[in-house]
Amino acid sequence: MTRQDEGLAFMLRYDNIARFEDGEVLILDRRVYPAKKEFVRCRTHLEVAQALTDMVTQSAGPYTAGPMGMALAAWECRDKSEEEQKAFLTEAAYTISNARPTTAKRMSLLCRECLDAAFKAMEEGRKPWDAIVEKTYELNDERYAQIGKIAKYLVDKFPDNGHVMTYCFAETIVGMMLKECLRRGKEIKLYCPETRPYFQGARLTASVCSDMGFDVTVISDGMPAFVMKNEGIDVFTTAADAICCDGYVVNKVGTCNTAIVAKHFGVPYYVTGAPDGGHPTVDTIEIEMRDGEFTLQAMGVRTAQEGVKGYYPAFDITPPELVTGVVTDQGIYSPYELNKYFEHTDGKIRVVV
Amino acid sequence: MTRQDEGLAFMLRYDNIARFEDGEVLILDRRVYPAKKEFVRCRTHLEVAQALTDMVTQSAGPYTAGPMGMALAAWECRDKSEEEQKAFLTEAAYTISNARPTTAKRMSLLCRECLDAAFKAMEEGRKPWDAIVEKTYELNDERYAQIGKIAKYLVDKFPDNGHVMTYCFAETIVGMMLKECLRRGKEIKLYCPETRPYFQGARLTASVCSDMGFDVTVISDGMPAFVMKNEGIDVFTTAADAICCDGYVVNKVGTCNTAIVAKHFGVPYYVTGAPDGGHPTVDTIEIEMRDGEFTLQAMGVRTAQEGVKGYYPAFDITPPELVTGVVTDQGIYSPYELNKYFEHTDGKIRVVV
Repeated sequence: MTRQDEGLAFMLRYDNIARFEDGEVLILDRRVYPAKKEFVRCRTHLEVAQALTDMVTQSAGPYTAGPMGMALAAWECRDKSEEEQKAFLTEAAYTISNARPTTAKRMSLLCRECLDAAFKAMEEGRKPWDAIVEKTYELNDERYAQIGKIAKYLVDKFPDNGHVMTYCFAETIVGMMLKECLRRGKEIKLYCPETRPYFQGARLTASVCSDMGFDVTVISDGMPAFVMKNEGIDVFTTAADAICCDGYVVNKVGTCNTAIVAKHFGVPYYVTGAPDGGHPTVDTIEIEMRDGEFTLQAMGVRTAQEGVKGYYPAFDITPPELVTGVVTDQGIYSPYELNKYFEHTDGKIRVVV
Repeated sequence: MTRQDEGLAFMLRYDNIARFEDGEVLILDRRVYPAKKEFVRCRTHLEVAQALTDMVTQSAGPYTAGPMGMALAAWECRDKSEEEQKAFLTEAAYTISNARPTTAKRMSLLCRECLDAAFKAMEEGRKPWDAIVEKTYELNDERYAQIGKIAKYLVDKFPDNGHVMTYCFAETIVGMMLKECLRRGKEIKLYCPETRPYFQGARLTASVCSDMGFDVTVISDGMPAFVMKNEGIDVFTTAADAICCDGYVVNKVGTCNTAIVAKHFGVPYYVTGAPDGGHPTVDTIEIEMRDGEFTLQAMGVRTAQEGVKGYYPAFDITPPELVTGVVTDQGIYSPYELNKYFEHTDGKIRVVV
């Protein structure tokens, strides 16, 4: 239905991330993908919020699923008075925004956009749920286009026939970077560390690469050194949960480990995204420590005996000396000169995922 | 039954590694340990060889299980003529030695010792299977004593209250090093990367540490950088499948990755064992590539979709510039001066695991 559908992998198409239809929201369950292609069915926006809390979808998935929850909320209150509908939607925006603490800020911006679209539609006598879906696709298109720009700069750094390593699941940028490779005829081969304990690399990134026709190999998180030494890696690249303005990169735990190994072998490390004005320095970052027990299981099977402790920091922090460049929609910046990004954008901060 | 029983963890006691009894060999199934304490029951030495091929036991386990297979072979042919028994045993030694290519050399030395013991027993009218079991325990005692010496030198490098990281499952040295810590009252806390794809760190090393009363934490193979930065690691230590005389260390894949990270954080890396005269330089090493499909599962559950490739080098190679010291039974050597080890041992090469 939108331009992004063309040539993208199954799980990156808007409809497959989450969709509103017949008074329900369907969300692809990434917790079991790709072993199962199952959609969680939500009959109220509260169920959508719960699904977000339960990590049914992750990475950029919530930024489609959350707004679809807003469309569902509009549907739920369709028989109320206009004032009541507005109050109901405002309440729903709050609930959905706060379903996960890590994404609360970005999600509240999106929900605000949904509210504006819905209120305008109501004034114009259009269906507010349609307006929300339309707005969401529009914002998604914008985001994909912006990330498409990043992809162009990133793929400039890829060889025509070479090896690229990427860590965790970088959602949209993976799809856009592969599309750009296809467009330019760059036949890259991908290596994905599996990304324990959640296996995003093995389950999600590798699926997207394979769906888009690329040669993709999953390795364990301890194998990057062997692969860089013996197979040769031309570029290591990841997205980031946050890029601090002083060049420190916050991303899925394991990123820093691999960046150190890349540096050792002289492999350039490019981070995609944009500096986050909300984090002027790394000192504003607090790492979320999750339940260590999760590290003591793999795909639901316990690995260690009772009495052994687990450990699970959600992210790690890669210092700027390990980062070759930050690839933004405005071009590639040294991690030491990220202030220049804001010069070019007149200080405007965008939502990049 | 032997001195090694005192204070060692369950899976390090000879009887629990593998034993010959009532015309059968029982081998602890390390593929399912610690979730299950099951012994694989072998009724012929061919079944023992198959069990070795199937990785029922690993690390130093085969050096008890293989000789027990020789005892079983002696039992199998007990009613044949002496000449036929000798031929049968010689054939069995060949089969067991070659059950796994990586261990063929060491195993053939052990089987040679078993043959000598058996032939001598036959000449003296004693039961050859008893002689083989006796010889195996004697060799094990020797090995544990030698590794006990290594443990003393290694533990010298540990703080009284500090953090030690070890990778994969270093069998005997883990037990002996912990015993030495207990003896000296060093209250170390251990961090074990889980060691994908086989989880030796989570399943085996962590179990031994916990059984011996230590505080042990399992981390994913991507977390060493985070732990070294945020928790502090005083010493990183591993054993080795081979230490080349030019200081290159061959060990479970992931070792080099972690050694690079340790170097980055200034954490000393001590390798235990002895230089291998059979490998004068790293050029003699050929890395065994195992079935990549194994990396696409975790604890028996598939992680990636069809069409995605796997990759599984059994070992990686850590260069001498990442090695602080090689801890031997003769003391600690720089990886660049391993020739000095042979001066002290008059060129005699020992089997060290």
